[in-house]
Amino acid sequence: MSNVSEQSALSLRDLRDCQQWLSMNTATLGYRQPIQQTVESVAKAGFGALAPWRQEVETPDVNVSALAKQIRDAGLAVSGYVRTAYFAGENAQVRQAALEDNRKALHIAAELDAACYVAVVGGLSTDKPGIDDSRQAILDGLLALGETAQEVGVPIALEPLHPMYAANRALLNTLAQARDWLHILQAEYPEQFGVVVDAYHVWWDPQLEQGIAELAGNIMGYHVCDWLSPTQDMLLDRGMMGDGVIQLPELRAMVEATGYARFVEVEIFSAEHWWKMPVDEVLTVAIERLLQVC
Amino acid sequence: MSNVSEQSALSLRDLRDCQQWLSMNTATLGYRQPIQQTVESVAKAGFGALAPWRQEVETPDVNVSALAKQIRDAGLAVSGYVRTAYFAGENAQVRQAALEDNRKALHIAAELDAACYVAVVGGLSTDKPGIDDSRQAILDGLLALGETAQEVGVPIALEPLHPMYAANRALLNTLAQARDWLHILQAEYPEQFGVVVDAYHVWWDPQLEQGIAELAGNIMGYHVCDWLSPTQDMLLDRGMMGDGVIQLPELRAMVEATGYARFVEVEIFSAEHWWKMPVDEVLTVAIERLLQVC
Repeated sequence: MSNVSEQSALSLRDLRDCQQWLSMNTATLGYRQPIQQTVESVAKAGFGALAPWRQEVETPDVNVSALAKQIRDAGLAVSGYVRTAYFAGENAQVRQAALEDNRKALHIAAELDAACYVAVVGGLSTDKPGIDDSRQAILDGLLALGETAQEVGVPIALEPLHPMYAANRALLNTLAQARDWLHILQAEYPEQFGVVVDAYHVWWDPQLEQGIAELAGNIMGYHVCDWLSPTQDMLLDRGMMGDGVIQLPELRAMVEATGYARFVEVEIFSAEHWWKMPVDEVLTVAIERLLQVC
Repeated sequence: MSNVSEQSALSLRDLRDCQQWLSMNTATLGYRQPIQQTVESVAKAGFGALAPWRQEVETPDVNVSALAKQIRDAGLAVSGYVRTAYFAGENAQVRQAALEDNRKALHIAAELDAACYVAVVGGLSTDKPGIDDSRQAILDGLLALGETAQEVGVPIALEPLHPMYAANRALLNTLAQARDWLHILQAEYPEQFGVVVDAYHVWWDPQLEQGIAELAGNIMGYHVCDWLSPTQDMLLDRGMMGDGVIQLPELRAMVEATGYARFVEVEIFSAEHWWKMPVDEVLTVAIERLLQVC
């Protein structure tokens, strides 16, 4: 594990001076309490923002307008609204339904004053003959969503996912590919698309520094957790920052070298460990690690 | 699944006309019988080659010279000797021991008349400060092995592994990175290094066609299996060709477009399915699928 204090050669914001940019992605807490309670827990722990998931917000128990007010009153920003329905599926009808669903979510993201709507783009469309066609269907879906993003004033942040999710979660898998997709999308909608960089998904990339540098001006979010070695589960065995092998200060330095000076968001899927720990303990450890090892 | 017969637009060898190039990587059979018996099973099933693992060959029960003769007498070629000790480790002593071990293996590869010695390069070296240093340690180890490869006349085939193995199995993770490493290694040893392309590891790459094209003249082996969706285990849940999502004919067409006209090797790690099926049935299905969907 790299320690921030040992990284004196790196040019980095001191996160102690900008706790308003520390954000908690609520997936980290395992969806074990109502979102209203999570807002209070996150604010009390010292975070300046949160990134709620749709499954917590778009339920009959939640009045979005009241939730938005509660978040503001707690002094929290919304670093992102998580996440798109996949722009992939069994057929055109399924993809159209996902598009409508994403339009609805963008309106809610606007009501929450979210900094972005996070796009996990989806994997292979089973009715398409091949991977290139599936990727094109995703691009088509993103373009179709651009107008709504423009209307509501919330940009869509493409999240490249680790290649191990290519088949069933996201066919956007590298920083270089995100750069290429942005070129296509921004030709139609110059302000409506950006990228989220998540340490877990990109740390292994042999072209990491170049890939991040080429996204300068387009980075809308930066997510942290850690890669455990060995990893026991492809989705739900992510580690707390400092418990794995990612060089987090070096990675943040690359991101901040592009001029990025916004949220550092903790997002950890951990069914067997952190999702079994008390919520307040998870929040406390996350803040500590943000300040010590990120 | 793509079917070869439907891919009339693709320029491909008809594998029915070149069964001498069909190879069985013995890992596919789950190491359940002695290598001598596997040689006979593989030949009887109609393969023209096999790729044995060191753990089956370098044991007191095996006389390498006799095994080499048995393989020749069975009419089989050796498409590769599998695989290097990792060029990574806890410290320099461990890495030096791996180097010596790899030198010994190269001599055995030569005795078996293997077409190449397959390099799975290893992941992070825990005594190194970071990923770049770990990658450099691997390159140093490969360079140190070049002279022995030259002496014995067996080239080293770098296998880029899926990025999900970066931490603990291989920090060589893309075709573009393999191209860059080849440039470095071939500057010292022009004939001693090449690449193995394995469909499982590279199918997701957004730069797949370009990545393969840039390896023209350096491809020493082509491995097939399939990516199951969803995948249950990061190592041991690989699928038989046709049971997953990889467009195998399209991928082989890219490889053969570089001029490659040698082995198509089946390598499947499948603890819960194929390793529980009778060896002869696995071999029969593998041949059928090679001819039908690869």
